[in-house]
Amino acid sequence: MIRTPYLLFLGDAHDNLAAKVAQGIKDWNPDNVVGQFRMEGCNADVGSADMSLQEAFDKGARTLVVGVANRGGMISQAWLNVLAEAMEIGFDIASGLHNLLRDENLLKATSARTGATLHDVRIPSVAYPIANGTNRTGKRCLAVGTDCSVGKMYTGLAMDAEMQKRGMKSTFRPTGQTGILITGKGIPLDAVVADFMAGAVEWLTPDADADHWDHIEGQGSLWHVSYSGVTMALIHGGQPDALILAHEPTRTHMRGLPDFALPKLEELRDMALPLARIANPACVVAGISVNTKALSDAEAFAVCAEIEDRMGLPTVDPYRHGAGRLVDALSAL
Amino acid sequence: MIRTPYLLFLGDAHDNLAAKVAQGIKDWNPDNVVGQFRMEGCNADVGSADMSLQEAFDKGARTLVVGVANRGGMISQAWLNVLAEAMEIGFDIASGLHNLLRDENLLKATSARTGATLHDVRIPSVAYPIANGTNRTGKRCLAVGTDCSVGKMYTGLAMDAEMQKRGMKSTFRPTGQTGILITGKGIPLDAVVADFMAGAVEWLTPDADADHWDHIEGQGSLWHVSYSGVTMALIHGGQPDALILAHEPTRTHMRGLPDFALPKLEELRDMALPLARIANPACVVAGISVNTKALSDAEAFAVCAEIEDRMGLPTVDPYRHGAGRLVDALSAL
Repeated sequence: MIRTPYLLFLGDAHDNLAAKVAQGIKDWNPDNVVGQFRMEGCNADVGSADMSLQEAFDKGARTLVVGVANRGGMISQAWLNVLAEAMEIGFDIASGLHNLLRDENLLKATSARTGATLHDVRIPSVAYPIANGTNRTGKRCLAVGTDCSVGKMYTGLAMDAEMQKRGMKSTFRPTGQTGILITGKGIPLDAVVADFMAGAVEWLTPDADADHWDHIEGQGSLWHVSYSGVTMALIHGGQPDALILAHEPTRTHMRGLPDFALPKLEELRDMALPLARIANPACVVAGISVNTKALSDAEAFAVCAEIEDRMGLPTVDPYRHGAGRLVDALSAL
Repeated sequence: MIRTPYLLFLGDAHDNLAAKVAQGIKDWNPDNVVGQFRMEGCNADVGSADMSLQEAFDKGARTLVVGVANRGGMISQAWLNVLAEAMEIGFDIASGLHNLLRDENLLKATSARTGATLHDVRIPSVAYPIANGTNRTGKRCLAVGTDCSVGKMYTGLAMDAEMQKRGMKSTFRPTGQTGILITGKGIPLDAVVADFMAGAVEWLTPDADADHWDHIEGQGSLWHVSYSGVTMALIHGGQPDALILAHEPTRTHMRGLPDFALPKLEELRDMALPLARIANPACVVAGISVNTKALSDAEAFAVCAEIEDRMGLPTVDPYRHGAGRLVDALSAL
């Protein structure tokens, strides 16, 4: 559990894309964000108030979150100096970088001396159990994609936000670094040892009230040969009651695999649902989430209408059109 | 790569079941076994010549393989003394125990001083890549099971042995600790980090001659919710040309999951084949391997005949009846 609220560290990010983790936190959990800290030469701006470390701490921020990609796989000395100074003031530090905070001597020493915690969210911090398949109380929804990076996390976040707005019981359950930094908890599933993947997902989504929905962040795709095992563990460890099919209609091949075509939504449905029913025989496909970022308003509308007509399921871009109809579908189950 | 041949360490195993790893090595790779080493009170016997450490070393043995389960999750002082003495003589030590050799101070110190290698085969020793899905040359066969522990490893070993006997090009590719100890190499797939599972399998089964068969050791089951992600990684990382369906007909529920029924062989076929064709569109189901250990000769024959008639595929217990008909089926592809 990462202490909140956050000060977002943007470092010397040369554009907004480099700061997309910080942007995700700002977009999805603005209540947890006190401000942003930018170094000289920073060209990113997530739209939060600029402030110094001390000022943010005085306003209540308790964790400095590295919300920016580092260049060249190194944490620069300039960054290290800021992070160490933050710990001296009283901040914990959280990061999803491949390079671990704990591997930096300055940060390790400062942490030991000040008692500040270093959160490397790419590394599991829990000894997860082996999955036991026991049926848990409460409801669970999982987005499964025709490919990686088609909007599964945004789908879960948008459905959770919509349920919160309606006063329903709902929790977003992160399984990747950005989601963990947004909510302050979760599991870095892609870094979990194979035998414990499904058990980690069970641990993430425990028993809950009968009318509570967990929105489990999806990963990978059954069609993505590099990561399909992780997707499988989510389907069986998550034992979802509802699947949302997630799709990006302009993708020409599987991400990073130029020789692999994306499946049709029908194929995804027909593969994912029987697999999900092994863990939860009551599972249904409840709706479709289309990432229309690359399309105009008219194109987005047309694509969703065509899919909805073909598949007979509510179809929206939850980021563009809102997740209301997907939540309606879950409520009707 | 573990140096061969082996001296099999049976310790103080109280019965043959406790020494089943040693028995597997003796059964499947007798040419690699110089003898067995038994301590006082040992009731196991894998049918190899008893000998002292020095005698075995003089006969060429180069690795002492811990082929026995330890009781209570501890490596006893009596065992440690023998393993250390072996290193002094010139042996390396290999073990698949959950407790690691490298975590024992005496073994670590002796290894450092003598230069002997400690092989903890449960732990990956290679930084595996992320899978890239590239089509590899050569042929691959993978057994997929209706459950865990239904004879997938024995199926692969038996098919490899039969191909060797026929002078065909063939390699058994272990993915678990017993298989690794039998052959001296392989990947401990259940201990690999999620993101690298499929890449580890690709690494294990590289390009080969067009008429060469890799027999990839299967793990878990698509129906076993604890381990199905590992199975999925084998199906996509292995990109098999042929699947063998593996089944144990007396199993009443999924191993360790009393509330989960086994799938029918038809269900396994209909799920596994489309998943395999994502990675290799030419994949076929080539035959069925039935573990008939719990049945009489007549019952075993009847069960295989019934399944063969129903499924229209060559059906044998490769350990009991030989793997000839399964190899015939691969040869005919």
